[in-house]
Amino acid sequence: MTDTRPIGVFDSGIGGLTVLKAIHQRAPEETLIYLGDTARVPYGSKSKETVLRYSRNNVKFLREMGVKMVVIACNTASAYALPELVAENTIPIIGVVEGGVEAAVTHTKGVIGVIGTEATVNSGAYSKAIKARRPEARVISVACPMFVPLVEEGWTHGDISTAIVRAYLDRYKGQVDTLVLGCTHYPLLKEPIARALGPSIALIDSAEQTALKVKETLDKLGASALAGTRGGLRFMVTDSPARSKQVGERMLGGLSMGEVELVDI
Amino acid sequence: MTDTRPIGVFDSGIGGLTVLKAIHQRAPEETLIYLGDTARVPYGSKSKETVLRYSRNNVKFLREMGVKMVVIACNTASAYALPELVAENTIPIIGVVEGGVEAAVTHTKGVIGVIGTEATVNSGAYSKAIKARRPEARVISVACPMFVPLVEEGWTHGDISTAIVRAYLDRYKGQVDTLVLGCTHYPLLKEPIARALGPSIALIDSAEQTALKVKETLDKLGASALAGTRGGLRFMVTDSPARSKQVGERMLGGLSMGEVELVDI
Repeated sequence: MTDTRPIGVFDSGIGGLTVLKAIHQRAPEETLIYLGDTARVPYGSKSKETVLRYSRNNVKFLREMGVKMVVIACNTASAYALPELVAENTIPIIGVVEGGVEAAVTHTKGVIGVIGTEATVNSGAYSKAIKARRPEARVISVACPMFVPLVEEGWTHGDISTAIVRAYLDRYKGQVDTLVLGCTHYPLLKEPIARALGPSIALIDSAEQTALKVKETLDKLGASALAGTRGGLRFMVTDSPARSKQVGERMLGGLSMGEVELVDI
Repeated sequence: MTDTRPIGVFDSGIGGLTVLKAIHQRAPEETLIYLGDTARVPYGSKSKETVLRYSRNNVKFLREMGVKMVVIACNTASAYALPELVAENTIPIIGVVEGGVEAAVTHTKGVIGVIGTEATVNSGAYSKAIKARRPEARVISVACPMFVPLVEEGWTHGDISTAIVRAYLDRYKGQVDTLVLGCTHYPLLKEPIARALGPSIALIDSAEQTALKVKETLDKLGASALAGTRGGLRFMVTDSPARSKQVGERMLGGLSMGEVELVDI
C-alpha cells in the first residue's frame, strides 16, 4: 500500500528545516510541505496558551492542504502542544521531544543535560519524558535564549559564539555525559558546544531520531510513498519569504528551497 | 481646557517602556496605558505588511480604551506604519523616529550613524527624515539584530556585550560624530556603545525627544490633563505578563509596573 499525500512539517520559523532535511534524506520518496510561522516567530519566549493557539493554526492550515501526517519540527511547540494536537487530530502528529529523549536515555551514563528555549525548559517536557524511561537518570536543564539569535545572525563560529556558549554551559563541564540539543537551531552550534563541554560529551540532535520515527510510523500504517520515487519539497512562511530563504538555505547546507511562498494563516 | 483621557503607548514588547518612563517623568499628570504586543514580538525582523497589520490592531485596541493620543514607542512600527496610522486616525499619532532625527540634526557635525533593527534600517525611515532636514549630512545605518536579545537577557555590561557591540560598530569609530539609538532597547547598551565609539560621540536616545513632542502636542491642542495632579499607569501585554513585569521593571529602573494585565487582541 502506498500513500502519496504529503507530510506537513511546521516550525515557529526556519529552524525546523534541519528536521525536514533529515526526513528528506531518510525518506526521499515523501513529498514534504514545510510551514514556518515567521510572522509570529519566536515561540520559545512565549506562554503555553499562545504556543498552543499558534500550533493549532498551523496544523489546521496543513490539514487543509491534505497532509497525511504532521511533524512538529519545533521543540517549544512539541513541548507545549503535542498532547493536545494528538488528541484533537485523527492523522498522526509527531513531535521532536520523544526522539531526542530516546537517544539520550540510550547514550547516558547517568546525567543528561537538556538545553533549549525558556519555554521548552519551563515546560519540563524533556525531564518528565526522561524520568519516565530512566527514573534513576539525573537531568540538568538550561535555557539558552541567546542561541537562536546567534544562529539566525550566522555567528556559529568564532569568539562571540564561544563566549556565549561558555556563559551558559561552562559550569556543567564534567557534570553531564550526554546533552540533548533541545532546539532545532542548536545543531549549528555543535562545535562551540562540544568545545565548552569537552570531547567526551554525547550531543543528541533530535532531527535524525525524529526522521527515523516518521519512517517507522509510515511503515507501520502502510502509508509510505512509493519507494524509489522522488517526492517534492514545498516551502511556505507567514512572513518575509526572501529572508527565510536566505537563512533557511544556510540551515539546509546545500539543499535549495526554490520558491518560498508567503501564506496568510 | 483639560482632557483627562489616557494616552496610549504601544510597542512590540517591553522596550517601549523607556519611552513611557520619559513621558511619565515629563508629564506626570497624564494617565498612560501601555500595550506590549509580546505574543508577536519582535517586529524588527518582520516585513512592512506584517508590522503594519499588527500596528493597526494595537491602535484599534487602544482607541477602544478611549485614548486621546497614541504614541508608537517602537522604532520598527514608527518606521513602517506611522504615515498610514496618521492618515487612518483622527487622534494624534506620534512615532519615535521624528524626535531622534530632530536631536541628531541639531547635534551633528556632518556624519550621523543610525543603529536599529533590520526592519528599521531597511525601511530607510531615519535616513530619509535626516536628509529631508539636512541634505548635506552623511548617514551610516547599521542593523544590530543581536542587541535586543542581549538586553532582554540582561547582559548589558561585561565581556559579551562589549564583544557584540564591537562586532557591529568598531569599523565606524571616528567616522560618525552622532549616533541615533534607533531602537527602544538600545539605551540600555549606552555604556558599551560609548566605549566602542569613543567618548566624543553624541548618543541620541529618542525617548526624551518623544516625550517633549507629546507634551508640546498636548499643549497645542489644549488636551493636557490638569497640571499638579498625578495620572495613573496601566500595563497590558498580549502574552506572558509575569515575564514582561520582570524584564519591564528592569527597563523602567525603579518604577513599579503593579499588575500587568494579559489581553487578547
